[in-house]
Amino acid sequence: MEHPSKQVNRRSFIKKSSLLTLGTLGTATVFASPHEAPLSFTQDRDINIVGPKEGYTPQIGTLVSMLNWMRMVILSPVKNMSVADLDYLVDENANSIGAMLMHLAATERFYQIHTFENKRWGDWSKADADKWSVPSGLGAAARKTIKGNTYDYYLNELSQVRENTLKELANRDDEWLMTVDKDFPWGPTNNYCKWFHVCEHESNHNGQFKFIKSRIA
Amino acid sequence: MEHPSKQVNRRSFIKKSSLLTLGTLGTATVFASPHEAPLSFTQDRDINIVGPKEGYTPQIGTLVSMLNWMRMVILSPVKNMSVADLDYLVDENANSIGAMLMHLAATERFYQIHTFENKRWGDWSKADADKWSVPSGLGAAARKTIKGNTYDYYLNELSQVRENTLKELANRDDEWLMTVDKDFPWGPTNNYCKWFHVCEHESNHNGQFKFIKSRIA
Repeated sequence: MEHPSKQVNRRSFIKKSSLLTLGTLGTATVFASPHEAPLSFTQDRDINIVGPKEGYTPQIGTLVSMLNWMRMVILSPVKNMSVADLDYLVDENANSIGAMLMHLAATERFYQIHTFENKRWGDWSKADADKWSVPSGLGAAARKTIKGNTYDYYLNELSQVRENTLKELANRDDEWLMTVDKDFPWGPTNNYCKWFHVCEHESNHNGQFKFIKSRIA
Repeated sequence: MEHPSKQVNRRSFIKKSSLLTLGTLGTATVFASPHEAPLSFTQDRDINIVGPKEGYTPQIGTLVSMLNWMRMVILSPVKNMSVADLDYLVDENANSIGAMLMHLAATERFYQIHTFENKRWGDWSKADADKWSVPSGLGAAARKTIKGNTYDYYLNELSQVRENTLKELANRDDEWLMTVDKDFPWGPTNNYCKWFHVCEHESNHNGQFKFIKSRIA
């Protein structure tokens, strides 16, 4: 279990952070909109507060806040898409938004196995390989098999994987997050880098979602 | 100046983090490559170590490590591109990679002015508006004017803006990073969220770079 002093430090850090957020909302008049205003009052009021979060050690909580924020941003433009939209291919070599949503879940699942279970990259169980290899690889196989699904289908897959991520992260600490894998193909890479990649990887594909969305007839 | 206790805490945190990285590099044999292997021993040996960095307070240093990593990743696929590649348009409504690279610099410049100089979004000097409004907006105006430039031109623009970001971040602390802007159009948003957005925004466009690169005749 977590050392009591860690708990005290986290609580005081979060409390201090919370104090910085006190105050009524001001009016939002600006000369022009900032680039990409994801926003949302309908969700977690603190969704745009990146930093330590209750229930996690400080850096893990910061990572979690980034994961939450990124997920909110990438789902916003696709949440009202039809099956046809989600299956749309801009050309014969393209990936659909739906396939890429499964791809995001697959990537996160593989990093779960790799970092939480300390499996070497590629050392997946048959069940995981069967479920996630095609979405992981995208391309022709994904074009053939990942289609005809609603947004809710993809949301459910993404959410189940994410639920497991958050559960496992809540059971780890910042020392784990900073632990370096000297054998990773990228060079010495820590868990924070691997999980930051999982997060920014969603943004990478979001750029493709937006391109596709603008081309749907 | 920074309180001495902050300095001690940062040094001990970084020292502890460094201890976790000691050890010789193992061999990198994996069953399959992880998704997107950015790599690079030719650069900073710690490029894939996300977390606090020397010269910055802990969370600012973590942000800096993410900015550095993301920039390395997005430049890798474009650094050997010709002028024609950088100007390539997949269709008449598209943005070129070159224009989008300027767009990344513009976005970062606007967030510098907004968060470092406390200017309301859009309240730019004439010089900044003249230089950055077109790349910020992309589209037709950018297609018309941002072309004919080499990779080194865009790298220089990006690097100059980034140098200023790092200089300003080095002069601020984690309390500044956590400060919430209650008037931001997204809802209550802290500086960390704004700067995380600057970072992930590069990944967003990287997804488009990769799509374009695969379609260049």
